[in-house]
Amino acid sequence: MTASRQTPAGSAEPTRPTPSMQAASGLFNEVHSAEIVNASIGSATDPRLRQVLTSLVNHLHSFIKEVRLSEQEWASAIQFLTDTGQACTSTRQEFILLSDVLGASMLVDSLNNETDGVATESTVEGPFHMVASPQRALGDNIAGVDDGEPCLVTGTVTDDQGVPIPGARVDVWQADAHGFYDVQQLDQRPEGYLRGLFTSDENGRFWFRTIVPRYYPIPGDGPVGRLLQVTGRHPNRPAHIHFEVSSPGRHTLTTHVFVADSPYLYSDAVFAVKSSLVYEFPRVDDPVRAHEVGLPNPFRTVDFAVALRAADDTD
Amino acid sequence: MTASRQTPAGSAEPTRPTPSMQAASGLFNEVHSAEIVNASIGSATDPRLRQVLTSLVNHLHSFIKEVRLSEQEWASAIQFLTDTGQACTSTRQEFILLSDVLGASMLVDSLNNETDGVATESTVEGPFHMVASPQRALGDNIAGVDDGEPCLVTGTVTDDQGVPIPGARVDVWQADAHGFYDVQQLDQRPEGYLRGLFTSDENGRFWFRTIVPRYYPIPGDGPVGRLLQVTGRHPNRPAHIHFEVSSPGRHTLTTHVFVADSPYLYSDAVFAVKSSLVYEFPRVDDPVRAHEVGLPNPFRTVDFAVALRAADDTD
Repeated sequence: MTASRQTPAGSAEPTRPTPSMQAASGLFNEVHSAEIVNASIGSATDPRLRQVLTSLVNHLHSFIKEVRLSEQEWASAIQFLTDTGQACTSTRQEFILLSDVLGASMLVDSLNNETDGVATESTVEGPFHMVASPQRALGDNIAGVDDGEPCLVTGTVTDDQGVPIPGARVDVWQADAHGFYDVQQLDQRPEGYLRGLFTSDENGRFWFRTIVPRYYPIPGDGPVGRLLQVTGRHPNRPAHIHFEVSSPGRHTLTTHVFVADSPYLYSDAVFAVKSSLVYEFPRVDDPVRAHEVGLPNPFRTVDFAVALRAADDTD
Repeated sequence: MTASRQTPAGSAEPTRPTPSMQAASGLFNEVHSAEIVNASIGSATDPRLRQVLTSLVNHLHSFIKEVRLSEQEWASAIQFLTDTGQACTSTRQEFILLSDVLGASMLVDSLNNETDGVATESTVEGPFHMVASPQRALGDNIAGVDDGEPCLVTGTVTDDQGVPIPGARVDVWQADAHGFYDVQQLDQRPEGYLRGLFTSDENGRFWFRTIVPRYYPIPGDGPVGRLLQVTGRHPNRPAHIHFEVSSPGRHTLTTHVFVADSPYLYSDAVFAVKSSLVYEFPRVDDPVRAHEVGLPNPFRTVDFAVALRAADDTD
């Protein structure tokens, strides 16, 4: 930054909000605060951006007035937001976590993924899809050695008419038997552990070996964890495997498969459970079958039916 | 972080929201999304925190529904908030800047500093009060050598009955003649340049030498600057000197003195101008007086009357 400074281009003094919006002082006033801010938006602004920002400013100002936010509370909010931003790293996304625990992520998901009763339902992406999943061959074991229950995950990708989709991209990530993602303990796990990028076969089928994930608390050592603590909310998410399934011409599906016998199924800290996504993981006790699939006996199984709806304009 | 993890204390599965708030699926639903999130707040939560958070969640969900926020817009918002947090350093506060340009800072100021027509009006603190002002003696020159117009700032601190307050703490900070604060160019200016912490004398008087500040654009190289750009808003603030004046038993006053002949007085990018805070800075052409006060001739002057209201419960 240099010590001399030109008046920025296009910074001629604009007309202020109309007098009717201003108090006798001619300037900011409490009653019309949101209108005064919104009136400063330039006329050439993208209409959708104007719409979103205007609604945001209206609600922000209504919120502040409704609770009569104190200066100390405002300062705490600034510190909380700053801490949340500074907790973000290349492997941690604290603002997504905040959006998740406030139900904002599920609401956006819900508004943008209306179900027709046929296509597989979506749910939140969550904050742990931060690293690329390694390309894997069908049947690969994404867990390697771990002390969890071995599990064979199978599934079929179809369109919403049930027609199989070959070559679909099936991106998978999950926690381990202790409830941790690889990125939470990179000192002990290689990046890419319990992640995989698979491609469905000519019949739309995919399969891989893993372990049954454990339920887990969302990270509690940051601002969002502290928020849950002071509001008496438990931090746990029921056990689940994340899927992101995509294919050209289809709406990309971001979802989970929840484990039916997991605790916290009815009190997910991020409100992400949909009943259609809850699957039994039956136990198979069959040494021959175990040998065939390359798992110790007994093992558990789940078969996930993925039906992708057609892409719309927003894809 | 260790690989084994205990179930956190107090994390027994709580009762979920009442069935009436839930759709047939028994879980999250769009219509009652905010109620479902708010119902997760624990019963032992501080009542004020519950009130503030409940209102925040209600307005956040109403906003998302009103504009039907898309997944891409949500992702942009997450990135914007993350960038804003990561732009904060020990000498830069981008979230205060965001609050300022959205009018939230002025609204909080306004709600918490109602004027009685006697006490001096407040305005925003702004993002540049990040470093402690150096202790200074009355009469000190806080500018040293600079190419701005020399200026003698004088003032009196009184209570709201006009009774002088000796020993009041008068913290001052301002931009230079190019519109920069010290912390914006630490490579060229020592920290503490154009800042001072003064103590009013036995008559409540204070005085110091400085230069007339210039109007300036708020920092444009971060997320908030980009927000102003895409919304066609100019980034400029009219010229002003910041004051924070405090004395035991009195409400601390955070305010500005605005320079009456500055551009942008009626379109402050952060909406902070109040007409009672706009002061003429008359020019004095008097070599004898200039010599007395230790400034080159001619110089400018301003005399700021600071009346502090009594402290209330929130001080």
